[in-house]
Amino acid sequence: MALGEFELIRRFFAAAACARPGSGVTLGIGDDCALLAPPAGEQLAVSTDTLVEGVHFPRNAPPARLGQRALAVAASDLAAMGAAPLGFTLALTLPEVNANWLQDFAQGLDTMAQSCGLRLVGGDTTRGPLSLTLTVFGSVPVGQALTRAGARPGDLVCVGGTLGDAAGALPLVLGERSANEAVAGPLLSHYWTPPPQFTLGLALRGKATAALDISDGLLADCGHIATASGVAMRIEQSRLPLSDTLRAFLPAAAALEAALSGGDDYRLAFTLPAEHLAAVVSLEPGVRVIGQVLAGEGVCLVDEQGLDVTPGQRGYQHFRERP
Amino acid sequence: MALGEFELIRRFFAAAACARPGSGVTLGIGDDCALLAPPAGEQLAVSTDTLVEGVHFPRNAPPARLGQRALAVAASDLAAMGAAPLGFTLALTLPEVNANWLQDFAQGLDTMAQSCGLRLVGGDTTRGPLSLTLTVFGSVPVGQALTRAGARPGDLVCVGGTLGDAAGALPLVLGERSANEAVAGPLLSHYWTPPPQFTLGLALRGKATAALDISDGLLADCGHIATASGVAMRIEQSRLPLSDTLRAFLPAAAALEAALSGGDDYRLAFTLPAEHLAAVVSLEPGVRVIGQVLAGEGVCLVDEQGLDVTPGQRGYQHFRERP
Repeated sequence: MALGEFELIRRFFAAAACARPGSGVTLGIGDDCALLAPPAGEQLAVSTDTLVEGVHFPRNAPPARLGQRALAVAASDLAAMGAAPLGFTLALTLPEVNANWLQDFAQGLDTMAQSCGLRLVGGDTTRGPLSLTLTVFGSVPVGQALTRAGARPGDLVCVGGTLGDAAGALPLVLGERSANEAVAGPLLSHYWTPPPQFTLGLALRGKATAALDISDGLLADCGHIATASGVAMRIEQSRLPLSDTLRAFLPAAAALEAALSGGDDYRLAFTLPAEHLAAVVSLEPGVRVIGQVLAGEGVCLVDEQGLDVTPGQRGYQHFRERP
Repeated sequence: MALGEFELIRRFFAAAACARPGSGVTLGIGDDCALLAPPAGEQLAVSTDTLVEGVHFPRNAPPARLGQRALAVAASDLAAMGAAPLGFTLALTLPEVNANWLQDFAQGLDTMAQSCGLRLVGGDTTRGPLSLTLTVFGSVPVGQALTRAGARPGDLVCVGGTLGDAAGALPLVLGERSANEAVAGPLLSHYWTPPPQFTLGLALRGKATAALDISDGLLADCGHIATASGVAMRIEQSRLPLSDTLRAFLPAAAALEAALSGGDDYRLAFTLPAEHLAAVVSLEPGVRVIGQVLAGEGVCLVDEQGLDVTPGQRGYQHFRERP
């Protein structure tokens, strides 16, 4: 990048760099490092995510939505840890400096930054195939971070809201199908702007025994908690919350498949002693109990008769362009 | 990436994830976030750098050296801030999973991680054109970070060691020229494994008035300090420290050009009240005084007669493949 281009890019991102000034960020963009100060008694939570064009989002993605999604996906890891939002860095690799694209992307990024309370504190811009790496920072009191490792037999298995909407939206994202606005609008919103569940994550501090955000698909991610905690989980298929729009858009089997194995939900999945359920639901009404933690290992899915209907587990497949 | 590939990659990076366990890193790889705890009274310093194949390093770069260089370049920003090393995240985008390449890259990364005292705390691996984004973390006592903004008229302008070696090495890196080992060895080392100047950065706490690491070239980077501090700088050409190997490899004018405008030195440049010079040199004997801070603006280069010989300033050009 030439110096003039750097300056241009810096101007586009000025808004996101000013979001929520002063709170925990003592030096922002423009020096060798940013300086972050978590509140006294708190630790810094850090997570990094890369999104590559053609792998994690389609070519020619709308830049404003891409900006929102990139930050939402990264920030979701903070929410899952019970961390309060602080700031983020953006490493942006661009094939060319296109002012319209940058303006829209930066505006989308700023929208999500303001809505989450995350401030852009630094970054790097380079020329190359389109790719974004975001590193997000939050703060959490020492000892209160929600890891994957504390689930105990007897806990409830819960999710933060409906499942499968983002995976179900893929044919719309790819332009392979269309739908009326009442269906397409909510599904596309789930895909492009999944709101990080910060309110829920903060409410779970001191209550949930394990948590993560669903990015690989419900069954795979519940498997991560089960493995890290050394427990088993029983998920009841009839309790899975599927949105009306997903049911209207997909046949029942495909909607279920999206909920169980589709990635990109970015809802929290967590384990909770039953005595905390009422308090958590009062703060986040979308929370649903979907199963129980048991002694043992592995995740099994049961139907209404209690029969094991667990599908063969598959690893998460990144989004790929169809040939 | 398929799940088996994730596991493979995780194994390769296990060593770097164990470097210096326990010091400031309370939760490392494997959960939604890493948890970092800077010492009481200290802030967290954060910097992000992206390296793209064909832009910042040549195609088919030796992976062990690339691993060392990627971390060194990123860590240098911490040193320039006066921060003590803590940890880093690696976002690695790979066109394919090549076990030999990954093993060598991870070994190089681990070598630099151990040598700097930086621990790998998290990351992301995706498929795409080869690109690395490293976000590095350090800690610095509140109020002691070395920014670019404090230089005062009367301060000395200093650098942490010889200049131009990495830029001078480019024809060797690209295979366009060769040289005997006594010349090629040190120059290639400067390019591939520039040691982050942590000892110097820590020594400058409470002494230097401004600092940065030279990545864009001496004159451009001195310009950054001058602008941020609202001062001018006078650099004496005869005082620029050029290595014997650089002089042996390049004609005098080209060696000077590499020292003035070549990027990638990753030496610290800093401004220092004269009373602190002896203490700093005793800790880092390679430090050289190259000029003075003056009232005014801009950076000028003078020859031994005091005549202005400032070349036209140019922005940093990323490394590019020759056609």
